[in-house]
Amino acid sequence: MFNKTLIIGLGLIGGSILQSIIDHRLVNHLYAVDFDKFVIQNAISEKLITSGDDDLLALAKTGVLKDCNCIIIAVPAFALKAIFAKIKTAIDDKLLPNDIIISDTASTKGNILKDAFDIFGRLPPNLVLAHPIAGAEKSGFMARDGNLFKASRLIICPHDFNDKQAVDKITTLWQAFGASVDFMPADKHDEVLALTSHLPHLLSYALTFQLAKDEESLNIFRYAGGGFRDFSRISASSPIMWHDIFLANKQAVLQGLENYQAILNQLKTDIENDNSEKLLQTFEIAKNAREHFGRLLVEKEKLKNGS
Amino acid sequence: MFNKTLIIGLGLIGGSILQSIIDHRLVNHLYAVDFDKFVIQNAISEKLITSGDDDLLALAKTGVLKDCNCIIIAVPAFALKAIFAKIKTAIDDKLLPNDIIISDTASTKGNILKDAFDIFGRLPPNLVLAHPIAGAEKSGFMARDGNLFKASRLIICPHDFNDKQAVDKITTLWQAFGASVDFMPADKHDEVLALTSHLPHLLSYALTFQLAKDEESLNIFRYAGGGFRDFSRISASSPIMWHDIFLANKQAVLQGLENYQAILNQLKTDIENDNSEKLLQTFEIAKNAREHFGRLLVEKEKLKNGS
Repeated sequence: MFNKTLIIGLGLIGGSILQSIIDHRLVNHLYAVDFDKFVIQNAISEKLITSGDDDLLALAKTGVLKDCNCIIIAVPAFALKAIFAKIKTAIDDKLLPNDIIISDTASTKGNILKDAFDIFGRLPPNLVLAHPIAGAEKSGFMARDGNLFKASRLIICPHDFNDKQAVDKITTLWQAFGASVDFMPADKHDEVLALTSHLPHLLSYALTFQLAKDEESLNIFRYAGGGFRDFSRISASSPIMWHDIFLANKQAVLQGLENYQAILNQLKTDIENDNSEKLLQTFEIAKNAREHFGRLLVEKEKLKNGS
Repeated sequence: MFNKTLIIGLGLIGGSILQSIIDHRLVNHLYAVDFDKFVIQNAISEKLITSGDDDLLALAKTGVLKDCNCIIIAVPAFALKAIFAKIKTAIDDKLLPNDIIISDTASTKGNILKDAFDIFGRLPPNLVLAHPIAGAEKSGFMARDGNLFKASRLIICPHDFNDKQAVDKITTLWQAFGASVDFMPADKHDEVLALTSHLPHLLSYALTFQLAKDEESLNIFRYAGGGFRDFSRISASSPIMWHDIFLANKQAVLQGLENYQAILNQLKTDIENDNSEKLLQTFEIAKNAREHFGRLLVEKEKLKNGS
């Protein structure tokens, strides 16, 4: 698909993109940048990449990226702006081609568009925002999986000044990984993710925090069962990463939270007033929706296992 | 331990109690009542019980329970009052001994004390309220497991008029199943369970409901990942059962919910004001508490596997 591709960030997602590209033989020469030198050395010695560095500009200065076709940035959202700045410097210095396709994997998009505008002074036509809905229990380069994106969803958020060819190429790349690609505007993406991912994390953090500060303190956890176990699993997620996400997607998270609070208030009133009919109705709708979601998960599992 | 014991309700919990008693040879003669005749027939034909019926009074009228030592009621909280009434009738008619030990497994306790007082006109000294913190993915008699309570927690809520011997016997019974027994007053139990079990269910129902009524309706679930999967699993629980629990434990659930809403409001303000320090602090406390809980789960698993 591309002659040369650079991946920035070799964590679970970046590493799995690298592995997927290799497994499907989609690129001739792969390059990587990661702040962890050991990961880069490892990727070179395993012959996964042609070369790499812990600094983008240092790698660019060797000249190997002068004809690079595509950069995929797989770092947390808050770290993208600094990378955009380095890419701009490299382009200005003719160390990267002016028309290079730039894509990302961040889980918030409105702020990325803003960052890009701030750095480039416009929305670059070859900047294609992408977000793979995929993850795994483990993290880091060693946990990479060339099948991670198989049967998963990939959201692309085209912007108003996007070059159609660039969008098509990134679409084809992810489809080659086995992902199913959907398109939606950045603001819609941020709303959807606020509800399906960011809000559950916030709500889970809040309840675990409530139990932790109970007068009986940590004792109370002795009486928690399987329901709490699953509900609270995500409150063991990285505080720094989620702090970043909540602030990066502030507007949509606050809007989702406000709507959620209204539902909680209604449930509270219904319990106070013994409104059985209303409570049962609400729980039925939720149960049906969760069962629908459960069926989607089963279908996805089947697709992933190739049946 | 007992010569004769009657179990009322042969679902997952009642069935697992039956199996635990049999596996540990704790009782000479077992009897059972369940509204499902097929389950009773099945238990008789498998020689698990001496006899049984779908109606307590019908069974009592055969005279086999005249010298029964213990009744364990394993039915949902809302169904206990009607069973207490039948037990009182049977005692009044000398079909059950006056000093029979009566225990339960319900997940709310304040309301059970009230029901008992309403029916018996006092808190019977031999009524020992017990709540096993245990469950499984599957439900029903066929899913029974003689190891379900091994390494699990069992809460006993002694009341002011309790006979110490009766409490000791129920304690010994559960310890023989492998459970670790704790004691706390009924109101404390209801508070603890509101936080560790009831509130997570309510919060999960609320978010799944919010997604289900989104304008894009069920489409939005296509973009949900593993975090939402775990968070929302319990919103597929039985609406009727949980409706009953929320109303049975109304006061403690509403109090827990109010405290939770205050935490959500604080988080909302912290996000609005980019209060990074405060957000990180809250998430760190939650993460540490969840990791503490995770270690408890690992210890429990080890105990269960006998290592």
